[in-house]
Amino acid sequence: MLLLEEKILRDGRVLPGGVLKVGSFLNQQIDAGLLRAMGEEIARLFSGCGVNKILTVEASGIAIAAAAALEMGVPMVFAKKHKTSNVDGDVYSAPAHSFTHGNDYNMVVSRDYLTSADRVLLADDFLANGNALEGLIKLTEMAGAELCGAAIAIEKCFQGGGDALRARGVRVESLAMIERMDGSEIVFRH
Amino acid sequence: MLLLEEKILRDGRVLPGGVLKVGSFLNQQIDAGLLRAMGEEIARLFSGCGVNKILTVEASGIAIAAAAALEMGVPMVFAKKHKTSNVDGDVYSAPAHSFTHGNDYNMVVSRDYLTSADRVLLADDFLANGNALEGLIKLTEMAGAELCGAAIAIEKCFQGGGDALRARGVRVESLAMIERMDGSEIVFRH
Repeated sequence: MLLLEEKILRDGRVLPGGVLKVGSFLNQQIDAGLLRAMGEEIARLFSGCGVNKILTVEASGIAIAAAAALEMGVPMVFAKKHKTSNVDGDVYSAPAHSFTHGNDYNMVVSRDYLTSADRVLLADDFLANGNALEGLIKLTEMAGAELCGAAIAIEKCFQGGGDALRARGVRVESLAMIERMDGSEIVFRH
Repeated sequence: MLLLEEKILRDGRVLPGGVLKVGSFLNQQIDAGLLRAMGEEIARLFSGCGVNKILTVEASGIAIAAAAALEMGVPMVFAKKHKTSNVDGDVYSAPAHSFTHGNDYNMVVSRDYLTSADRVLLADDFLANGNALEGLIKLTEMAGAELCGAAIAIEKCFQGGGDALRARGVRVESLAMIERMDGSEIVFRH
């Protein structure tokens, strides 16, 4: 998606350690025009798939999931991050690891909001190692829901998570795919 | 806002201790049609105020802030919740207390994303004691930004936070105002 790639080139900042800072337009400040365009593009990509629910995880996935939900006219659900695994019977829970924050947590979603009647589109702002998506896929499977695919704003291809999921048959659509970052140069995959 | 009131009456659940559960349509599952209508209503209420930024706090305020930002065509920013107050010079930080979770935290936002050029509309899903709004107001003041008001989905008037802010001259617009909850009966203020 050209608009997002241009925004990354203009306003993104490459930090040491393969970190791409996009806080000025994607998280934690979010550009309204870009958000709308991303929602429209996700709706276009997954039209005709019968998606009836969008699932993300708090916090930075919520805005893009909301934009997609508004365009597609389906409800969105966000999994919560809990530090402990003290799970009661009313929720599904999957372990996950945050590379950004270097900690383990549990993704938790109420059984009331994810069921076997759901055809689920996952949404998130970033895809790197794929750890967050793995957790969301596990929640989807636990609920007996059908997985339609995943919509991502920015995929860091060089961290391998997206291609590993595609190899397993998951449809992953990333609006901007970064093949590599050489110093401050950003090279996209098309 | 009639649509929200009807939704609360139909799908909300009053729990002991003055808790209103709206997880099926406002958090953590979010109804797309309702979300769009709330964004439109907030845009209508604050049109002509020169709002150029919407500020909320993670996580459950993000969807409504995004919906309002999309309608108003202005960026949104969400403050993050940090447990510790180890604040560097790049952020504004304000202490807050969560009555839901019974803990203290700090609201943190980058100085890059909240400045004296901003005319800020606060947005959140709930207003009860007003603690979260107080923190967001403090961040706005620290940045030297102008406060245009606050847009809230559901105000629990009986907890007093909204009226206290109004008494101080803050424009608070709540899309549904709950005067009291008597057992399972919900009485709105109009």
